[in-house]
Amino acid sequence: MAIAAKMKLFIDKGSMIRKMFEEGARLRKIYGADKVYDFSLGNPNLPPPASLRERLAAVAKADESGLHAYMPNAGLDETRAAIAARAGADHGVALAGEQVVVTCGAAGALNIIFKALLDPGDEVIVPTPYFVEYGFIADNHGGALKPVPTLADFALDVGAIEAAMGPKTKIVLINSPNNPTGQIYSAESLARLAEAMTRRGRENGRDIYLVSDEPYRRIVYGGAQVPSTLAAYANSIVATSYSKDLSLPGERIGYAAVNPAAADLGDLMGALILANRILGFVNAPSLMQKVVAGIGNACVDVSLYQRKRDLLAEGLRKSGYDFALPPGAFYLFPKSPTPDEGRFVEILKEENILVVPGSGFGSPGYFRIAYCVDDKVIEGALPGFERAMKKAKAAG
Amino acid sequence: MAIAAKMKLFIDKGSMIRKMFEEGARLRKIYGADKVYDFSLGNPNLPPPASLRERLAAVAKADESGLHAYMPNAGLDETRAAIAARAGADHGVALAGEQVVVTCGAAGALNIIFKALLDPGDEVIVPTPYFVEYGFIADNHGGALKPVPTLADFALDVGAIEAAMGPKTKIVLINSPNNPTGQIYSAESLARLAEAMTRRGRENGRDIYLVSDEPYRRIVYGGAQVPSTLAAYANSIVATSYSKDLSLPGERIGYAAVNPAAADLGDLMGALILANRILGFVNAPSLMQKVVAGIGNACVDVSLYQRKRDLLAEGLRKSGYDFALPPGAFYLFPKSPTPDEGRFVEILKEENILVVPGSGFGSPGYFRIAYCVDDKVIEGALPGFERAMKKAKAAG
Repeated sequence: MAIAAKMKLFIDKGSMIRKMFEEGARLRKIYGADKVYDFSLGNPNLPPPASLRERLAAVAKADESGLHAYMPNAGLDETRAAIAARAGADHGVALAGEQVVVTCGAAGALNIIFKALLDPGDEVIVPTPYFVEYGFIADNHGGALKPVPTLADFALDVGAIEAAMGPKTKIVLINSPNNPTGQIYSAESLARLAEAMTRRGRENGRDIYLVSDEPYRRIVYGGAQVPSTLAAYANSIVATSYSKDLSLPGERIGYAAVNPAAADLGDLMGALILANRILGFVNAPSLMQKVVAGIGNACVDVSLYQRKRDLLAEGLRKSGYDFALPPGAFYLFPKSPTPDEGRFVEILKEENILVVPGSGFGSPGYFRIAYCVDDKVIEGALPGFERAMKKAKAAG
Repeated sequence: MAIAAKMKLFIDKGSMIRKMFEEGARLRKIYGADKVYDFSLGNPNLPPPASLRERLAAVAKADESGLHAYMPNAGLDETRAAIAARAGADHGVALAGEQVVVTCGAAGALNIIFKALLDPGDEVIVPTPYFVEYGFIADNHGGALKPVPTLADFALDVGAIEAAMGPKTKIVLINSPNNPTGQIYSAESLARLAEAMTRRGRENGRDIYLVSDEPYRRIVYGGAQVPSTLAAYANSIVATSYSKDLSLPGERIGYAAVNPAAADLGDLMGALILANRILGFVNAPSLMQKVVAGIGNACVDVSLYQRKRDLLAEGLRKSGYDFALPPGAFYLFPKSPTPDEGRFVEILKEENILVVPGSGFGSPGYFRIAYCVDDKVIEGALPGFERAMKKAKAAG
């Protein structure tokens, strides 16, 4: 065999998602693109804010000397400082640029954090459901993902997480607002989680780090607030990106921000910066660093996502779907009307509707609808969702 | 300890280079920036070609829909096709876009190639001297670097490489034009290397891959040609970037191009694309992909680097330095006049001249001068180089 044995395994395992993409392409060819309702991808459909587009054009045109040159692996000073100011305000913590590493998106941030922290065999605890990529990222750096179920409405089960924290536990990874549920973990649950992590860390003689993956922090509805992880716990790191709030996922620009109160802060920053270099990122793309350094608090028009959520939620409720209305992100995660959600995903496909089975997120019995699509895709799909529900009930 | 044990080790090991940066900053503060001659970094000082800057401004201004969106992990179709045409012409091999993965620079390309190919404990053979980063990249993915010395003038010692290829050997990694020597491996030596790799691969019952890191392919002088690795050997992969030929190192745009004749081509491409995703790159930055897709054969003005090389070489020869005039890249790699080159690097530092000891490239007894700097830095440093040589000789 040419390739690494593990990669062969991953490719074969991953082929279900590939098959779904191929299925989408096949359906579009038969029925036309406007007759296929693809809710499978979290690819923001809103354009970046006008101020972002203007700033990008201005930076590119100004053609400043050194704009495309190598820089310190942690990023440009001005970008680190701007991020520290914004993230510090978000979290109610005094952050300095020295505590920030600019990264190739949140996925880049998570990879450097795991590389910096994990010794072989270390465990990363994650509440379910969770973004499937986490398992690969832990494995990249010799770690193992340990999923722990959540409570009703996908709230943190702090007792279960505490019970799961053993001597090998190095990281608790949370994602709030959550992909795929859109739920936000409450401040009260974070406070209890912090206590449990402190207690267990002391018992095990080893700090446990809270890593908060939060690219949807600004995609929230009805005045919802995302509680601060940095304020809740000293050994905490935020991993995030501008992919969702500026609709820039292809540009790979995000950051890791470390709590200034974290243990061994100097070593931790040194390890993150070294990891950014040796994993091959070297630095986050320089032009886009210049752009986001001056972007302030710009954000896409979140009311448009809210309208999509409400349009979809109302239609699904009428057809009898069971789900909690999410206060953030751009996903719904309804219960499958059939016990095996793979079967229901097939029924939806008969209606040219593409969604992702909950098993892909460690939560069988549910499915994910990414509603970051044109309103007319939602409107066009609702009759199909209704027919699919009837079919599922008829099949009993 | 907070961070992973291995990262702690790497940080402590790497601190010599950090100390050099700090030393440079310290010297600049004392003597002024124009009195410090920093040849330590391979950061291209030429601006990107005018056509690149124009195209970037145009793409940014056009603000095409979907410009910043997620895309297939392998890159934009148009970018892959443009790269295949350019790399195919460079290598005299018919390449299609399907054999290309657009990456975050050559370092990103090497990381996904090693991730795709290496099983735990596999060996990567590299001729010395070599870019220090290779050791980290092999280690990231469970592999081990096995350096093999070169011959006079740093030509490939194919016999030594063949002797070093054992049952654990999965990759032979070459870098031509070479960092730090600027030498180009001859077509004849590549042909013999290919024979040796085929022979050993057959004996070991396991294909050995030739990985060619070649970001300096277009930075060559006096009509020098860089022989094709893809034409020489079927199981071959090019890892490269636009960092040097377009002076864009901060933008992180490069690619991996796989020989269409490689064994298990489908699996190999699948593994590279999956690795690009799960290592957190996801895709190379989208805006810059659009830019390089239309850049044709643009290149920085190489004659300016040649002038720098000749200016430096002539001055050093007059002062009695011993080196082979390199036909490519922007480095000189002279012999140290003292047996311990660390000592001579210190003597140069007394002249406010910063260079990198050869030990950092696996070749003690030499030192690297990166001459991608302003002409006046070279001119200003020559008297210091002369005095340092006299001091070294006087010290005997």
